[in-house]
Amino acid sequence: MAKFIKKFSKTIGLVPGTLVSVDDKKIEKVKITIIDYDENVFQEKELKTIEDCFPFKETSTVTWIDIDSVYNPEIIEKIGSYFNIHPLVMEDIANTGQRPKLEDFEQYFFVVFKMLYYDKDSGEIIIEQISLIVGSNYVISFQEKEGDVFNPIRERIRGAKGRIRKMKSDYLAYSLLDAVVDNYFLVLEKMGDKIEVMEEELVTNPVPQTLQGIHNLKRDAIFLRKSVWPLREVINNLERGELTLVCDSTKIFLRDVYDHTIQVVDTVETFRDMVSGMLDIYLSSISNKMNEVMKVLTIIATIFIPITFVAGIYGMNFNSDVSRLNMPELSWRYGYLFSLGIMLCMVIIMIVYFKKKKWL
Amino acid sequence: MAKFIKKFSKTIGLVPGTLVSVDDKKIEKVKITIIDYDENVFQEKELKTIEDCFPFKETSTVTWIDIDSVYNPEIIEKIGSYFNIHPLVMEDIANTGQRPKLEDFEQYFFVVFKMLYYDKDSGEIIIEQISLIVGSNYVISFQEKEGDVFNPIRERIRGAKGRIRKMKSDYLAYSLLDAVVDNYFLVLEKMGDKIEVMEEELVTNPVPQTLQGIHNLKRDAIFLRKSVWPLREVINNLERGELTLVCDSTKIFLRDVYDHTIQVVDTVETFRDMVSGMLDIYLSSISNKMNEVMKVLTIIATIFIPITFVAGIYGMNFNSDVSRLNMPELSWRYGYLFSLGIMLCMVIIMIVYFKKKKWL
Amino acid sequence: MAKFIKKFSKTIGLVPGTLVSVDDKKIEKVKITIIDYDENVFQEKELKTIEDCFPFKETSTVTWIDIDSVYNPEIIEKIGSYFNIHPLVMEDIANTGQRPKLEDFEQYFFVVFKMLYYDKDSGEIIIEQISLIVGSNYVISFQEKEGDVFNPIRERIRGAKGRIRKMKSDYLAYSLLDAVVDNYFLVLEKMGDKIEVMEEELVTNPVPQTLQGIHNLKRDAIFLRKSVWPLREVINNLERGELTLVCDSTKIFLRDVYDHTIQVVDTVETFRDMVSGMLDIYLSSISNKMNEVMKVLTIIATIFIPITFVAGIYGMNFNSDVSRLNMPELSWRYGYLFSLGIMLCMVIIMIVYFKKKKWL
Amino acid sequence: MAKFIKKFSKTIGLVPGTLVSVDDKKIEKVKITIIDYDENVFQEKELKTIEDCFPFKETSTVTWIDIDSVYNPEIIEKIGSYFNIHPLVMEDIANTGQRPKLEDFEQYFFVVFKMLYYDKDSGEIIIEQISLIVGSNYVISFQEKEGDVFNPIRERIRGAKGRIRKMKSDYLAYSLLDAVVDNYFLVLEKMGDKIEVMEEELVTNPVPQTLQGIHNLKRDAIFLRKSVWPLREVINNLERGELTLVCDSTKIFLRDVYDHTIQVVDTVETFRDMVSGMLDIYLSSISNKMNEVMKVLTIIATIFIPITFVAGIYGMNFNSDVSRLNMPELSWRYGYLFSLGIMLCMVIIMIVYFKKKKWL
Amino acid sequence: MAKFIKKFSKTIGLVPGTLVSVDDKKIEKVKITIIDYDENVFQEKELKTIEDCFPFKETSTVTWIDIDSVYNPEIIEKIGSYFNIHPLVMEDIANTGQRPKLEDFEQYFFVVFKMLYYDKDSGEIIIEQISLIVGSNYVISFQEKEGDVFNPIRERIRGAKGRIRKMKSDYLAYSLLDAVVDNYFLVLEKMGDKIEVMEEELVTNPVPQTLQGIHNLKRDAIFLRKSVWPLREVINNLERGELTLVCDSTKIFLRDVYDHTIQVVDTVETFRDMVSGMLDIYLSSISNKMNEVMKVLTIIATIFIPITFVAGIYGMNFNSDVSRLNMPELSWRYGYLFSLGIMLCMVIIMIVYFKKKKWL
Repeated sequence: MAKFIKKFSKTIGLVPGTLVSVDDKKIEKVKITIIDYDENVFQEKELKTIEDCFPFKETSTVTWIDIDSVYNPEIIEKIGSYFNIHPLVMEDIANTGQRPKLEDFEQYFFVVFKMLYYDKDSGEIIIEQISLIVGSNYVISFQEKEGDVFNPIRERIRGAKGRIRKMKSDYLAYSLLDAVVDNYFLVLEKMGDKIEVMEEELVTNPVPQTLQGIHNLKRDAIFLRKSVWPLREVINNLERGELTLVCDSTKIFLRDVYDHTIQVVDTVETFRDMVSGMLDIYLSSISNKMNEVMKVLTIIATIFIPITFVAGIYGMNFNSDVSRLNMPELSWRYGYLFSLGIMLCMVIIMIVYFKKKKWL
Repeated sequence: MAKFIKKFSKTIGLVPGTLVSVDDKKIEKVKITIIDYDENVFQEKELKTIEDCFPFKETSTVTWIDIDSVYNPEIIEKIGSYFNIHPLVMEDIANTGQRPKLEDFEQYFFVVFKMLYYDKDSGEIIIEQISLIVGSNYVISFQEKEGDVFNPIRERIRGAKGRIRKMKSDYLAYSLLDAVVDNYFLVLEKMGDKIEVMEEELVTNPVPQTLQGIHNLKRDAIFLRKSVWPLREVINNLERGELTLVCDSTKIFLRDVYDHTIQVVDTVETFRDMVSGMLDIYLSSISNKMNEVMKVLTIIATIFIPITFVAGIYGMNFNSDVSRLNMPELSWRYGYLFSLGIMLCMVIIMIVYFKKKKWL
Repeated sequence: MAKFIKKFSKTIGLVPGTLVSVDDKKIEKVKITIIDYDENVFQEKELKTIEDCFPFKETSTVTWIDIDSVYNPEIIEKIGSYFNIHPLVMEDIANTGQRPKLEDFEQYFFVVFKMLYYDKDSGEIIIEQISLIVGSNYVISFQEKEGDVFNPIRERIRGAKGRIRKMKSDYLAYSLLDAVVDNYFLVLEKMGDKIEVMEEELVTNPVPQTLQGIHNLKRDAIFLRKSVWPLREVINNLERGELTLVCDSTKIFLRDVYDHTIQVVDTVETFRDMVSGMLDIYLSSISNKMNEVMKVLTIIATIFIPITFVAGIYGMNFNSDVSRLNMPELSWRYGYLFSLGIMLCMVIIMIVYFKKKKWL
Repeated sequence: MAKFIKKFSKTIGLVPGTLVSVDDKKIEKVKITIIDYDENVFQEKELKTIEDCFPFKETSTVTWIDIDSVYNPEIIEKIGSYFNIHPLVMEDIANTGQRPKLEDFEQYFFVVFKMLYYDKDSGEIIIEQISLIVGSNYVISFQEKEGDVFNPIRERIRGAKGRIRKMKSDYLAYSLLDAVVDNYFLVLEKMGDKIEVMEEELVTNPVPQTLQGIHNLKRDAIFLRKSVWPLREVINNLERGELTLVCDSTKIFLRDVYDHTIQVVDTVETFRDMVSGMLDIYLSSISNKMNEVMKVLTIIATIFIPITFVAGIYGMNFNSDVSRLNMPELSWRYGYLFSLGIMLCMVIIMIVYFKKKKWL
Repeated sequence: MAKFIKKFSKTIGLVPGTLVSVDDKKIEKVKITIIDYDENVFQEKELKTIEDCFPFKETSTVTWIDIDSVYNPEIIEKIGSYFNIHPLVMEDIANTGQRPKLEDFEQYFFVVFKMLYYDKDSGEIIIEQISLIVGSNYVISFQEKEGDVFNPIRERIRGAKGRIRKMKSDYLAYSLLDAVVDNYFLVLEKMGDKIEVMEEELVTNPVPQTLQGIHNLKRDAIFLRKSVWPLREVINNLERGELTLVCDSTKIFLRDVYDHTIQVVDTVETFRDMVSGMLDIYLSSISNKMNEVMKVLTIIATIFIPITFVAGIYGMNFNSDVSRLNMPELSWRYGYLFSLGIMLCMVIIMIVYFKKKKWL
């Protein structure tokens, strides 16, 4: 449930802009790395204290400050006040239950969105909030914890691959967004595989556990949709919006990310349709099985109940000597065979009836 | 049902603007508190009569008049006529069945919205209407009954915490709205917990009472949605609208509340999806149980009905001396064992059949 | 079905603007009342012929002509041609199957909407079409039959209560609309009560009749929605539209009616949600009952079928003297008790099994 | 299925504008009638060849050319080239699988829509495409086959009833549209009657055929909606659009047709809601019947199985002389009555139990 | 599943614009054909190397370069750099998982859409991506593999049929789009046939395989919708958009394709409605069958269980000589007939009961 709603109780009644982490995680060591580059210059180091990054604010090179934990309010506060960030933005960074959104403050813009991946152990979708503050010559990124999703971008900057070293901070921000959206496709692929396995199972051997599996897939789909849907609008606003910090050549790339987001949303919708179709099949298949059980019962019962009755008849004790009228069959020479014959007839009639009904 | 529709019968046929309470509550003692402040001045007192607050209307300080009951039409009328409020607004304040809305009258604006909380005893969601009249230097708030949701704001004003003492009446109105929206998250958390418990129950032990629980959750979700959905638009209008009384620095904060409202609406939608998924699981689980019951019946019946028939055969009274053809088995040396053997064969065949069908 | 679609067959092929009543009602005596007022003057009378109202057209006072039947085409035609009304408007008045709508003809505007009430005898919702023609100094209202919904307004005009005598014809039109919308709340209250009773029944004693009841509620909800939904737009257009005949002070009141209409629509939607939830509960409860029936059958059958088999065994006639191997139990001293013991064991095993399955 | 999708295979690969009929109908004799009128002049005749209508193109009178078959490409081509119609329009006329649409070519506009009626024999909805080409002084109408839906309009022109003779070609086009939309109400009435009959049946005697009936109604509703929904937009564009050929006085009449179309769409939606409600009732009623069947089985089985067991007990052959312990009841004076008494008790207990469960 | 989501894992972390094929196909021989024409000139040949087409770029004639495989990045790259195409466009061409879209780059525009057809062997829908780059005097088309869908257009160019030789590259692009959209109707026809067959089967003989069939149809419908829905907007933008390369005379033709796309979307929606209706029927029909099975069981059981009990009674061994009270019937002269009579009565009562219940 924590996936869907972060504990807000802690923040109630506080002055707006107060930095409080809503997760029950202790303040870990925060890892701060800095990459400073332009077409000719490249510098990369890991910082000990947040203050070390302040000199880079004024340089003309693009500076990427990556902060790999948001559970330390002090660091967020320091960086916020130095870079002159609005207190509500700082609160949103610390508060990891945000909905993806874009906010423009002219000097900089603020983007918050969700990183998703399947946890290898539990098989559950893990969500992580990523926040970007993008100024004219710096990008500050906040992650909930250290991850490797941004490594290819670091590689590209180091190796001066592609156009990244020639572009400004807006292109770096685009690259980070793109890396995260690309990652969604991995989640979709994994989920698609799960759906395929589930559909196989449904047809070959539906068990009650299948139902639980369908339910989990449904929850994952709801969850994915909730994370991706608002991102679509965020990127659309980035691309079409009036942000002065985003230049036209970057907008073409943003349109590409936008297309990817639309594809993710489309696929999630398709998954939802398919998963809800699976529930119908599951229910039908239970009904089919019940039907089959009922048929077996009915066939056995309707064949044996009548002939058991016949056996019951000839088990009656009317064979007294009072009257010859009482059960003369018992005294017949072929009485026993006669009774067996009656039973056989009954069985044959029943079987013919069932054949006609296509139950056998 | 009273939650969804207030009794309007009383108001039918009255002149528009007539103050009539739609609730069946008697006129209690009304508690009126006043807080008057600016950056330097602070004054707080509880008023005996409503007339005591009139002098504050003309001061340049921000005045917050909090009226903790709406069941006394007289007080609403007095304050309305002194502050020159439109009669329809006064009617809406007294009439606690309003839909959240914003109305602008240039000299002041009027906001009505819903306060929600779980009643500790009944476990039901309680709804309370809160109305704000916001002028250039005063805020009048009306609550249905005394509550403590605004206490943190009083504390902040008293202690001059945050920026509240430096801002105007629009920021105070924002703070009150924010306090109420924050409270929604408490309701969502509580509801989220209930859903989690219910899902556990569904898997471990679904009983008919579970169904009632699901139904109640569904009603709560409908109810929440109805209260929060229109608020989204109210706050959007406050933020983007043409209200002259709301200054730009407050709008950034209103955008923050707006984001929270969107999150609440999103979460309510997610809850609805999850609750309706639970009903499907419940139905499937009933079907599964019925299926299991049917299987047990079928297994027992199909094993014992045939062998009971065999026992019935040898219970027939064809053992007369008329003919040796009559049931020779009865005279066989191992006839009894022979009959038991037949039965055993039948049982084995059945069990093999059920194993093949995966019923055992 | 007549509720949902009026018989249009009669009007097919006629010249547009032809006055034909679509209801199968004969032309009753039409009651025409006239109220003529301004702030100082007040006059009220019942007219014998429609021509008597013509002199009032030119006066500067507000004239309200109330015509209490639309089944007499002649009267509608006369008044239409005297007041210079478009033939299609006259046709719409006579044709009681209209969808609520607003049409502006500059000299006057035309509003048609629905009056709803529960019939006391049948318990069904009755629908009645009300049409208003509003000119600069007159309002002509058409009702399907005499009703008392407008009486409070007449009282207000007579007694000069509220502002009605000071305002123009647009305020009178608002008052009539308001009276009708207020009436919707009565219908909602009644329907809310029905839903509450139905929900009680569902939990305590669901019977097939409950299903019929749910179905009727569903139809009523569809019906209500169809009548109220377009009215929302009508009033919105009145309030926001470009109608020169509606002055600004009246628009505030129209906004109030608009809010009420939204509330009605909201509540109808909520009712629909609740009623469809009830159907799910009903189906679940049938499944639950079936499940219980099945369990009783299964318990009885699985307990008695095996022990009946044991009884059948010892009812076999292998007690011949041929061989001591044949059913030696019959000759045991405690054979009878032994057989009873076996049966008891079987019963205990079964009961333990059912306890484990939580069927008992 | 042909209702939903016309065979397009024939047209694939052809040059756009090629006239190919998609229906498998042979080229019948085409009936061409012409009516030429203005306020003073009136002329009506049936043409032998399409060329006979060409002289009317230049006259100032309104000319209505009605062509009662579209299965003859030659005629369509001739008229198209003489009246200077775009080839794609001619293709759309021949291709009867069009969606209702309006296309403006300044010199003329083109409207295509659907005529619907219930076939008397099969009880199925028949669809027919009607195309109008409306120029400043002519209207060319194409029907799939001869019909009588336009007869009232012919009558009105002949008799100079209403304003039709005083108006231009746009009013004639309106009249034709109006005639077709009026006809929809007949279809709705028929369908409404079917729904009513079906609902009766559902309550009194639901059989599997009912299900088929519900399915057919559902298909009809889908079908109707598909034909009428786009027409709404067509008429809206005619009324509000920028067509120079439609004058203002006609627009008031088009608004009237527009209202009718909205009503049709509304009613179709209502029918869909009602029909899907019927399916729920049908399923519930099957469940109810199954429940009842189950109860009868359970009552009979649970009453007789236990007492049959008792009879089985006393049918055991422990009446040997070996031991007096063996079934002493058999030797009791009132043993038989005693056993019957036990059975009676069991039956009474069962009946009391069932009464308590409300199964009897 | 690969239908719904292409494997994106390969492209993650790459520089944007990198050409990587997402399909697991090896680089086949690429077939490149070129057609160069205007009203007087016509030239057609198959190229050996991609460089051979470069001279045509500068000519004033329309040049159509058709490349029949996208699995060779080298060729795409060469042509892209020569024709000065944006790298992201080249990436989209190689990446066959694109959503249909239109992108305008002033010098040229880029359209990507889907070709659909039923595979003859597997009966599954096959999807193929087609990309067009349209410049002022050239069209470059990319197909996933060689196909014959564009042959009619080649024929038309060769034979100078229709207006294609007189028009510019935009008309050629329209023709290619039109050819693909026409092909959708073939898929719809095939799918319509499948639905019809399925509906027949549902009524005559519903088996579990039917369910699988319904599920497959549902997936196909989801699939179709996903491919066609965005195309609607693409064509709308082509027609209404600000593309300088599309001239007005072509826009009329694009409107025609747009109408076709709308029809396809409409029909897909109708199919979805119909297929989901089929599931309801399937479930109802299973319920009906179960009901019938239950009835047979109930009838047999309720007839024979009671009379078997009677037989059991007279099989009891109370015929000892201890007391004449014990089972006097056994000694009656007509005892046997009497017992048979009782049984007969029971059977008759049951049958009458079932007749009344309409079970027989």
